[in-house]
Amino acid sequence: MSNELEPVGCTHSLSNRDLCEQYRLAGFGGRVGWGQRPAVLVIDMARAWVDPREQLGSDLDAVASEISRVLEVARAIPLPVFFTTMAYDPGSEIGEVLKRKTPHCLTMIRGSANVELIGELERRKGEGSIEKPHASAFFGTNLLSILVGQSIDTVVVVGCSTSGCIRSTCESAFNYGMHAIVPRQAVGDRSPSAHEAALFDIDNRFADVCEIGDVLAHLEQIRDFIGAAR
Amino acid sequence: MSNELEPVGCTHSLSNRDLCEQYRLAGFGGRVGWGQRPAVLVIDMARAWVDPREQLGSDLDAVASEISRVLEVARAIPLPVFFTTMAYDPGSEIGEVLKRKTPHCLTMIRGSANVELIGELERRKGEGSIEKPHASAFFGTNLLSILVGQSIDTVVVVGCSTSGCIRSTCESAFNYGMHAIVPRQAVGDRSPSAHEAALFDIDNRFADVCEIGDVLAHLEQIRDFIGAAR
Amino acid sequence: MSNELEPVGCTHSLSNRDLCEQYRLAGFGGRVGWGQRPAVLVIDMARAWVDPREQLGSDLDAVASEISRVLEVARAIPLPVFFTTMAYDPGSEIGEVLKRKTPHCLTMIRGSANVELIGELERRKGEGSIEKPHASAFFGTNLLSILVGQSIDTVVVVGCSTSGCIRSTCESAFNYGMHAIVPRQAVGDRSPSAHEAALFDIDNRFADVCEIGDVLAHLEQIRDFIGAAR
Amino acid sequence: MSNELEPVGCTHSLSNRDLCEQYRLAGFGGRVGWGQRPAVLVIDMARAWVDPREQLGSDLDAVASEISRVLEVARAIPLPVFFTTMAYDPGSEIGEVLKRKTPHCLTMIRGSANVELIGELERRKGEGSIEKPHASAFFGTNLLSILVGQSIDTVVVVGCSTSGCIRSTCESAFNYGMHAIVPRQAVGDRSPSAHEAALFDIDNRFADVCEIGDVLAHLEQIRDFIGAAR
Repeated sequence: MSNELEPVGCTHSLSNRDLCEQYRLAGFGGRVGWGQRPAVLVIDMARAWVDPREQLGSDLDAVASEISRVLEVARAIPLPVFFTTMAYDPGSEIGEVLKRKTPHCLTMIRGSANVELIGELERRKGEGSIEKPHASAFFGTNLLSILVGQSIDTVVVVGCSTSGCIRSTCESAFNYGMHAIVPRQAVGDRSPSAHEAALFDIDNRFADVCEIGDVLAHLEQIRDFIGAAR
Repeated sequence: MSNELEPVGCTHSLSNRDLCEQYRLAGFGGRVGWGQRPAVLVIDMARAWVDPREQLGSDLDAVASEISRVLEVARAIPLPVFFTTMAYDPGSEIGEVLKRKTPHCLTMIRGSANVELIGELERRKGEGSIEKPHASAFFGTNLLSILVGQSIDTVVVVGCSTSGCIRSTCESAFNYGMHAIVPRQAVGDRSPSAHEAALFDIDNRFADVCEIGDVLAHLEQIRDFIGAAR
Repeated sequence: MSNELEPVGCTHSLSNRDLCEQYRLAGFGGRVGWGQRPAVLVIDMARAWVDPREQLGSDLDAVASEISRVLEVARAIPLPVFFTTMAYDPGSEIGEVLKRKTPHCLTMIRGSANVELIGELERRKGEGSIEKPHASAFFGTNLLSILVGQSIDTVVVVGCSTSGCIRSTCESAFNYGMHAIVPRQAVGDRSPSAHEAALFDIDNRFADVCEIGDVLAHLEQIRDFIGAAR
Repeated sequence: MSNELEPVGCTHSLSNRDLCEQYRLAGFGGRVGWGQRPAVLVIDMARAWVDPREQLGSDLDAVASEISRVLEVARAIPLPVFFTTMAYDPGSEIGEVLKRKTPHCLTMIRGSANVELIGELERRKGEGSIEKPHASAFFGTNLLSILVGQSIDTVVVVGCSTSGCIRSTCESAFNYGMHAIVPRQAVGDRSPSAHEAALFDIDNRFADVCEIGDVLAHLEQIRDFIGAAR
């Protein structure tokens, strides 16, 4: 990893120019840029979320394809990659508040088929798998320590849902002082309007929302730099 | 505190019926109701947020008035009350990511006038004051331990901004298994559209967004029940 | 659960009277007593720790018997019970610091026989199983939220090792404002001197170290009170 | 900062050879060594702990002198330096468990003279000051995020008390995947036996306990390396 890599120029792609300007004047929406040591977090690409016939599901095939492009170059470097899913032992882990507000949690049974990662992304040996109890991949898990223990300072966040687990994961990364990068074509949501609103919010508050081409270009620079150094 | 108090019937007041229905079918948006031991969290009612001339500020006079109504009955019970503000020592506490994404943090100097709580809410001796470094009142602070140590299971969240610190505080409360109640007239935001979108999201994912009249009625029931027991 | 249950009079059983007096004068070593809603945490009773032929193991048969007595009455009430073990995916979850300082972590493979709970304690359906990455059962896990979500305010901590995971779990419980009770015959350690030193430290700083008879008597009171109320 | 700096050979200085050997065989007590980016944490060098007339106090003059040596070279580099103290608003922040187990907490009033840092260590502008509610400098504070935000991977932990706040801070640093280095002459405790026992435990479980000369030599290497690069 090297200082010689230029930060990618991340761009806003947001419709609401007035709100955008209001946030900018209020001191939001700066660019965090890339740090020195990135990892990839693939959030909740399991059947419960990607199969439209499931209660929480929607069609995320296009998102999965974009994630595959990110993973291909990340694995060539190689960068650390972590996959998350949500799963509970309903008898001991689901309290009243969780069950009442989000009854879908009762369908996320540890070990069941609908919380399994989808096969398309082909998780490799050495890539992490994290069961998270809430939206943020950092909450109630050991992810933070694992990343700090590897001196990771940047997380590329992909997967679903933009308005839920992606947003919360980016907020945690920001709170912990990490650079978070969201390639917007590689995150998805069951609601297009919630997706757009969340991208705006994420970009203004927590992470850089970028074009996937720019993210891939930066990762390719790292790959080529590492390759040349070997 | 007693089981004999009926849960308040919290109501949705949301314009977007389709999105609402989509979320309900996906297993979001249940009612958490009240627990047994509430506290009040007054979020960021300091000059930086309530003075429209400040970079982050907007006119929150109406919100402050509603908060006063909540505090009046909470103090009569009395319930624990905690106020938050944000403040930093810029030289040692503000890292690159924080500074770049949200440059307004550089104006939140510990001890300066613009992070001081506004006088109208008249914080009393024995009411907590928490300096928080991020949006959620629980992140990077000792608030959770203080609440758990008092067996608080319910937080009434008021103040600003709905789309930032209110949303994040409600998410943390939910993650920690606490009931969170948001009287919608007692929270505010510089952007009316962000306010509405955040209330929808909070209500579906984390907390019960309620009419302030219903919140006051529940607190008055507690006050009367406690009074009768004396 | 009821206020009518008297707190158990927990007793010191410590050899070093001078150190004990020094700590008392320094404002340590008070009694936390029992709260209203206890749960039982059974720490690391898996083969790696209880089989003397294992690297970390020692003979904890007597400890296991005492734990069974605690579980019998806890299950009759019933109280929530949680078991922990430690387990890693070595390829993705073990960083340099962890591996260098405590190389035994490399033998704690998720899903392997030596991190499995021992059969004697007969974990029941509905009793939790928590994989923890570090000494404290609260660190890097969702345990705290699960307990708060059930309004648990007291943890009875049993298992091993007194000087490691028991001590750390008690410290976390204390930090989060929870009552922690350690029945001293139901915790064990590979080193008798480390065991005694840790009990002293735990009792002075974090939790009440009690005779197991007193702990059982308190739990039996709860059982009888609940039974009578049915 | 550079890979060219050799890790300091940290040495055990422990009397109990049998226990030491038992722990080594059990897979404890490896060397974590130095990471790339150190910071210095000065724990609780405030009047309450360093004035022998105070309830918690003992004579730590020699420890303060050694800390000054560490600070002198750290400031010449310069490394980030953070001071901690403990302080509460007794009316709102001290729960039953805390008050009962450690009644000395009632004397640690925010803003009072006995929680003020001692003058000898001359905290500079730009050096952090963290009020912590519990033994670990990481618990209930924003310290972790501040360190991660500056890519700190190593903490040199000095101050008091070895068996309390030093031990807990080292455990947290270890849990979060950070290298922790304890120069043994720069930490102190009211009890010499508790001090020795804690150093053994810290060295086996969490951090490298080193001779201060070796710590100073490593910091001087960094200083000279940085100086040469300018």
